[in-house]
Amino acid sequence: MAKVFNFGAGPAMLPESVMQQIREEWLDFSGMGVSIIEISHRAKEFEQVLLKAQDDFRKLTNLPENYKILFIHGGARMQFSALPLNLARRSESKKCLYVETGNFAKLANKDAAAFCDVKVIASSADTNYDRIPEITPEMVDQDAAYLHITTNNTIYGSRYNSFPETGAVPLIADQTSEILSRVVDYSKFGCIYAGLQKNLGPSGTAIVVIREDLLGQAAEKTPTLLNYTQADKDNSLTNTANTFAIYTTGLVLQWLLDQGGVAAIEKQNEAKAKVLYDLIDSSDYFRGVILPEFRGTMNVSFNLPTAELEAQFLKEAGAANLYALKGHRSVGGIRASIYNAMPMAGVEALANFMQDFAKKNS
Amino acid sequence: MAKVFNFGAGPAMLPESVMQQIREEWLDFSGMGVSIIEISHRAKEFEQVLLKAQDDFRKLTNLPENYKILFIHGGARMQFSALPLNLARRSESKKCLYVETGNFAKLANKDAAAFCDVKVIASSADTNYDRIPEITPEMVDQDAAYLHITTNNTIYGSRYNSFPETGAVPLIADQTSEILSRVVDYSKFGCIYAGLQKNLGPSGTAIVVIREDLLGQAAEKTPTLLNYTQADKDNSLTNTANTFAIYTTGLVLQWLLDQGGVAAIEKQNEAKAKVLYDLIDSSDYFRGVILPEFRGTMNVSFNLPTAELEAQFLKEAGAANLYALKGHRSVGGIRASIYNAMPMAGVEALANFMQDFAKKNS
Repeated sequence: MAKVFNFGAGPAMLPESVMQQIREEWLDFSGMGVSIIEISHRAKEFEQVLLKAQDDFRKLTNLPENYKILFIHGGARMQFSALPLNLARRSESKKCLYVETGNFAKLANKDAAAFCDVKVIASSADTNYDRIPEITPEMVDQDAAYLHITTNNTIYGSRYNSFPETGAVPLIADQTSEILSRVVDYSKFGCIYAGLQKNLGPSGTAIVVIREDLLGQAAEKTPTLLNYTQADKDNSLTNTANTFAIYTTGLVLQWLLDQGGVAAIEKQNEAKAKVLYDLIDSSDYFRGVILPEFRGTMNVSFNLPTAELEAQFLKEAGAANLYALKGHRSVGGIRASIYNAMPMAGVEALANFMQDFAKKNS
Repeated sequence: MAKVFNFGAGPAMLPESVMQQIREEWLDFSGMGVSIIEISHRAKEFEQVLLKAQDDFRKLTNLPENYKILFIHGGARMQFSALPLNLARRSESKKCLYVETGNFAKLANKDAAAFCDVKVIASSADTNYDRIPEITPEMVDQDAAYLHITTNNTIYGSRYNSFPETGAVPLIADQTSEILSRVVDYSKFGCIYAGLQKNLGPSGTAIVVIREDLLGQAAEKTPTLLNYTQADKDNSLTNTANTFAIYTTGLVLQWLLDQGGVAAIEKQNEAKAKVLYDLIDSSDYFRGVILPEFRGTMNVSFNLPTAELEAQFLKEAGAANLYALKGHRSVGGIRASIYNAMPMAGVEALANFMQDFAKKNS
């Protein structure tokens, strides 16, 4: 079978060695004679998996002691509702600040609006999300419960390359499409969360990292499983957790440690993104979607001269085993998601394909 | 490796052929060169998986056309909150009726109480959940939004062997530990739901089957992903679904069809339970937890003469490759969960072990 490179935005490719390990121990986890997905979430063998995943995440992020690591059902989108339910009461008027830098940032405040008074303090919608808007300290109302940002825009590829100063207002970050892709100082955030299905594991669950002083303030009408305080009390086992997702995430975290940690993977990510952006910048054929200073390293979105050429590009790329390069249904174009697990070889294969395609179709 | 029989209550064993198939196609789903967990929930290949799972569930249950099949994050426990959020407004006073037949039935009304006026109309708590209480038509207030029952008690092993008449009040059933284990007339229910992790697949997600006239009434403050109307509109893809859970459930449903469907598996389940209950009933050594007329076929809970003998039984059973027979932490004793996937050979191995143990330790 020819090697397929998978550029899907998520659920995304996982490290090859992790996928192999899952396959190898699929029918016999840890010598138990049964699969990891067939044991109780309260079995000591699963508890070890959970604790090790939390420990390894803490190591990888240099996470301060006063932050809790939770696994919450439903991916990042469920947290769009859970965040105001858990935190809006911090503000007397339930005012929660949001920045709109793309579709998911917009959905975050749309879902939140049922539970708090949403105030959008900045947006890059009028320039089609080609940048991260500037957020000055004066824009951050100090009576707000929190300020919510989406640090990496999966669809457009933009990224906060510096974070806003928020004073006493906790900064909350959806890091779904870039978590553990670069060194981040978690102590600057009240809460960071991410759906697992891009840089960490399979879909259906989110990791939520929250400063402990932000717990204990959930609204009375918070569904039990969306209550972060309850999740912390039960160490994410209030009910049957998504055991497969936590197990797989644990393997990915161990793989990251084996790669040398986040600083090491960050260098690789920068090198990978540079290959594609250098090609785009030196070409008249490909046009990047994002202004250079706001580019991230995870999602490289670009256009070809015409929609017809983009369709042809996607078709030929698929035939060349370069999978899932189609841009998000809301914007079209081409998007190469090159998360931690994407090897440089995949990026180089894509770059070669792009150059050949441009030559043949100019 | 010696064959291990897994009697865990959930996450539980899955059919051996399903586990083998997952392993075989783990790195290459449907010739795509990538894993099922590495493709988009919006890829046509995953859409086919989802639609086939829904079709097969419909076939297996003879589900009437006016019922929708949803996959909702968080397992059955999340629905404990979602149900009143989606349905309580049907009653002017938001009155919702509950029957307490065990721990999960109790949690269902505990979680619901934040969103509705819970009225417990019957309970078997005072006889330690050894039975299903009688529910007469007069007990079902006709101004209630719904009546909620837990059709099979995972911890004690009791089961509704007939269902209450509820008049115009929709009957809602948590079928987590027995779904598709016996023929049930779904047209008698407004909604049936189940966490996947016992009879259907891995943990983290629930299947929710709901009559379409019950949609469209969710409370304004319903988290987007707990809104059944939204889930129906988006065919369970409002956000990234737990693709692995839906895929695996699809394989289990196909396996069930291959076994001859629910009527065929029901016969096998009755035969399996009979082996254990006949042994218990003919013995002075083992004591069943549930009154015979309320026994189900999925969870067989019993005691030995002393707690010391139970501890010894569990230890020796483990050494004999009979795994996870310990009763729930809230009650102790022995529990053999013998879901659809447990072969008769496993039940016979357990019965032989029980007889030998009783002989040696009387």
